[in-house]
Amino acid sequence: MNRFLERLEEEILVLDGAMGTELHNKGLEVGECPEKLNLDQPEIVQSVHQSYVEAGSDIIQTNTFGGTRIKLNEYDLGNQVKEINTQAVKLAQGAAKEDTLVAASMGPTGKLIEPMGDFPFQAAYTAFAEQAQILEAAGVDLINIETMTDLQEARAALIAVKETTDLPVICHLTYEDSLKTMTGTDPVTAIEVLDAIGADVIGANCSMGPEGLLEVIQKMNQDTSARLSVEPNAGLPELDENNETIFPMQAQEMVSYAPQFIAAGINVIGGCCGSTPEYIRQLQDKVKGLKPQPKEKDSTTVLASRSQRVTISDQHPTRMIGERINPSGRDKFSEQLKNGSLELVSTEASKQAQAGADILDVNMGVPEVDQAQLMKQAVTTVQNATDLPITIDTTNQEALEAGLQNVVGKPLINSVTGEDSSLNKVLPLAKKYGAAVLGLTLDEDGIPDTAQQRLEVAKKIVATAEDYGISKENILIDTLTLAASAEQEKVLETIKAIRLIKEELGLATVLGVSNISYGLPERHQVNTSFLAMAIEAGLNAPIMDPTDENMKSALLASDFLVNRDPAGSRYLDEFAGQEDNSKPEETTTAQEDESQDPLDKI
Amino acid sequence: MNRFLERLEEEILVLDGAMGTELHNKGLEVGECPEKLNLDQPEIVQSVHQSYVEAGSDIIQTNTFGGTRIKLNEYDLGNQVKEINTQAVKLAQGAAKEDTLVAASMGPTGKLIEPMGDFPFQAAYTAFAEQAQILEAAGVDLINIETMTDLQEARAALIAVKETTDLPVICHLTYEDSLKTMTGTDPVTAIEVLDAIGADVIGANCSMGPEGLLEVIQKMNQDTSARLSVEPNAGLPELDENNETIFPMQAQEMVSYAPQFIAAGINVIGGCCGSTPEYIRQLQDKVKGLKPQPKEKDSTTVLASRSQRVTISDQHPTRMIGERINPSGRDKFSEQLKNGSLELVSTEASKQAQAGADILDVNMGVPEVDQAQLMKQAVTTVQNATDLPITIDTTNQEALEAGLQNVVGKPLINSVTGEDSSLNKVLPLAKKYGAAVLGLTLDEDGIPDTAQQRLEVAKKIVATAEDYGISKENILIDTLTLAASAEQEKVLETIKAIRLIKEELGLATVLGVSNISYGLPERHQVNTSFLAMAIEAGLNAPIMDPTDENMKSALLASDFLVNRDPAGSRYLDEFAGQEDNSKPEETTTAQEDESQDPLDKI
Ligand SMILES: [Zn+2]
Ligand SMILES: [Zn+2]
Ligand SMILES: [Zn+2]
Repeated sequence: MNRFLERLEEEILVLDGAMGTELHNKGLEVGECPEKLNLDQPEIVQSVHQSYVEAGSDIIQTNTFGGTRIKLNEYDLGNQVKEINTQAVKLAQGAAKEDTLVAASMGPTGKLIEPMGDFPFQAAYTAFAEQAQILEAAGVDLINIETMTDLQEARAALIAVKETTDLPVICHLTYEDSLKTMTGTDPVTAIEVLDAIGADVIGANCSMGPEGLLEVIQKMNQDTSARLSVEPNAGLPELDENNETIFPMQAQEMVSYAPQFIAAGINVIGGCCGSTPEYIRQLQDKVKGLKPQPKEKDSTTVLASRSQRVTISDQHPTRMIGERINPSGRDKFSEQLKNGSLELVSTEASKQAQAGADILDVNMGVPEVDQAQLMKQAVTTVQNATDLPITIDTTNQEALEAGLQNVVGKPLINSVTGEDSSLNKVLPLAKKYGAAVLGLTLDEDGIPDTAQQRLEVAKKIVATAEDYGISKENILIDTLTLAASAEQEKVLETIKAIRLIKEELGLATVLGVSNISYGLPERHQVNTSFLAMAIEAGLNAPIMDPTDENMKSALLASDFLVNRDPAGSRYLDEFAGQEDNSKPEETTTAQEDESQDPLDKI
Repeated sequence: MNRFLERLEEEILVLDGAMGTELHNKGLEVGECPEKLNLDQPEIVQSVHQSYVEAGSDIIQTNTFGGTRIKLNEYDLGNQVKEINTQAVKLAQGAAKEDTLVAASMGPTGKLIEPMGDFPFQAAYTAFAEQAQILEAAGVDLINIETMTDLQEARAALIAVKETTDLPVICHLTYEDSLKTMTGTDPVTAIEVLDAIGADVIGANCSMGPEGLLEVIQKMNQDTSARLSVEPNAGLPELDENNETIFPMQAQEMVSYAPQFIAAGINVIGGCCGSTPEYIRQLQDKVKGLKPQPKEKDSTTVLASRSQRVTISDQHPTRMIGERINPSGRDKFSEQLKNGSLELVSTEASKQAQAGADILDVNMGVPEVDQAQLMKQAVTTVQNATDLPITIDTTNQEALEAGLQNVVGKPLINSVTGEDSSLNKVLPLAKKYGAAVLGLTLDEDGIPDTAQQRLEVAKKIVATAEDYGISKENILIDTLTLAASAEQEKVLETIKAIRLIKEELGLATVLGVSNISYGLPERHQVNTSFLAMAIEAGLNAPIMDPTDENMKSALLASDFLVNRDPAGSRYLDEFAGQEDNSKPEETTTAQEDESQDPLDKI
């Protein structure tokens, strides 16, 4: 086992402090490339490392924060990416004691990634992967992604490290006073996304000084079992009388926050801009011998957009997965997509969000188009129109990966089946991109007749997913709605299968509800009754039309009944003050019916 | 054990043939009282008995067909009821061999009972009870109720015999060419009602000759496990050249039907008008040594009106118990009832029947009126307005018994609880009148919180009912709907309790659905979702407003889904050809949604 991961559970690991501040103190000019010093003035870099080793750092960090090819290109040093990063590792290793861990620092590229910016995800991924592989080859113990201001860039870096190296990784974002990243992600959403991709430790660095970061860490800790890290800066930078940047907070004050950080669940602590070896010395004195809080594995299913988490469980409201971003059987929609217009994607996204959708399914199933390109455009359009988590609904492998790259958050893949070919195609992508996956209970033999057989397929999906390193809470199961008009006797099997999945596997469940009424008149009658039955059985997230008032009302009423709407507050919000105008024409004498005491029969 | 019952399972028992025909042959004049011969010419009566004993009758019947005080009063012989009946028994006993059984014949009073006529049930009951007790005291082996043309009079006679004697009883009705009794009861409905009251053998006699009666017996046998009896007449009476009544069918032809009757499940066979000792001789030759068909106990729950059976089971459509004949909270309805007007009872009965109600609940809960009298009027009114089975909904003991007497059929008592005081009050009446009983899962401690506890109450109700001789199929269970607004966490317990009752006891279930939404806006939303959930859990008969189109639609859709509406034929009958006008306003592009293939997600 990696020696970083080994120690993580047992002790509070102390990182080092600022590299940049120290290099400036030792003569680095503003505007110079800090990483070039690895080649030009290695003794300065190494002396910083030595000062931190002497101060007691358990982990020192290489001078590679700006060491991606993209960032180095700003100084025309892109072609030296290998030398600069390799040399940086050597300098740290040279200063390290036997038990000092060497972390490779990786910072932002300086580009804003799509969809918020125009830099392609894949280009960022490639740069991070290149740097990470160089650092691993040079022998670091772990990688520390730092100072990410955009969740999508953090995803690119983290996915690249996880995918192309075997190193453990810490992933730090920076937060603003709003407790969100520059591009709008809150700590709880961030941790959900990064945890799903496989960050070993998740943290926050720089930004607001220890006081603000404490709030960030506390928020994270409420909602996660992930291991946490923090690198506060020494307050916000000020200019001194000589117009030099100084950081106002002294070591003693900074260190005073350490016990609170430990109480808030951190495993790793260091310092960012303005923090000094003195701070690290005092910090190590303070935390020596202390153990991190034990973590309890949380197994709730959560999807996320850039700025919003949606928890899917029996203790939460039934979630509507909006089905309307789907051109199937809609000629004009298909036509628009073929002609490159995503107007209806945008309209349907907004309309469904407004109607209360919790998640949006994106299906771009039109023939004769570049599926991957269209999926990328579609998820981008949806993310610009709403901040809801997305379900990527495609059987096209390239379209799936394009969707997974361009959804900023933790999407749901719709879908994988119990067929080996499907499992082996979809699950690696789910694992790579930290997506949840919707398992359909069908396999090579089609849709099983009985609930028990569908449970068996679900078990196979779960077992295979676990082999791929995907944990249960990231698997949702769809027990498959068949048309009642064609296969009436199987309707109850679908419902029973939901119940079995809950009892035996405890997984969140999804169902495309409206298929049930295919070919029938007054479909909403069948759809609403089926929805109520399915929710009672344990359905968590129907795929449905959120703009269908009948369905939404049935969902709200059902949630009230199954106690997913405490005190009926959502129901009452929706309907309070409305007369029940559904009653049939009454004889005048029956008008007082409604005042009947509920217990008058008893 | 009674020696009649002992032999019943093992052999085909042969009754005797006509008494009246034989007495006429021996000199009885038209217009004379046949039973008076018991006193005046006992040797003639006894000689008829002897001829049947010699012909091989296993059971001979006393000359007491018209022996009720009411019938005897037509000849001013009412004050000799005891002598006439007692003497009749002696004459039969005098003719009997050691193993000849003596059955006491009991025929109609000649009065038409309420509600079809104006003769009170209680008066008929009293007369039959008087005769039966005299016959028992004189030592007959069993009682044979015969030639009843009206189910209500048969009920009165049967209930009287069962309640006031310990004798086994055969109960025969007569049927017309329509295969219904004169007052409109078909054989299957009759058998349901008479079986529930406790007839040991149920049959048909007289009327149409053997061919028609064979059809009657075959119908009965399809739907019952009751033991059956038949006494065909020798064809329909004709007048001969001397203007004398003769019966056209010869013994040989009559006997030729015997194998078919046995195949149709009879245990007892004899002859009615026109049949002779010769017929009985040939009959005994034919059936000697043959065994009756084995009977398989059928445990389906059935209610009945005079002319209609309603089966309540998971294999049948969900039954609507109409709740609108109930003045609670309806001022004008209450006012009318206090003023003696049953106009709204009649209106609500018709309206609900027209709306598709399967059963009508009758609750006359108004203060300061004679509850028993009002209940009698109400059930009479309902039976005049519709032919639906009735639920008698009262906690007033006298009102309950008045209802039970005056409902022609097999009603449901709403309700008994798990409280000893309730069980001991209600169950004896249910047993006496052959009613089904609705058990509410509450006891001295109120309504239990959990489904499991409610199951325990249901078990107590079943056990106590079985002690009273009421079998499981005549117990329905209501797991009690509480208002979701007040006790949200108990909603699912009600649903779970239905499931438990089904799994552990296999009983039919009832639920007053609309209580669920007490105090809420848009009650129909909650009611319909709750109904769907409850039906999926196994609810068989909601108490509801059948004129509420939302509820009815939800019921039809739910039945389709849970496979209680094979091929959705009821659903399609109701809705076929209707546009789904429930869809929200669509963008023009979404109009083709409905054509979506149900499997397009898979
Ligand atoms: Zn830093
Ligand atoms: Zn910093
Ligand atoms: Zn007859």
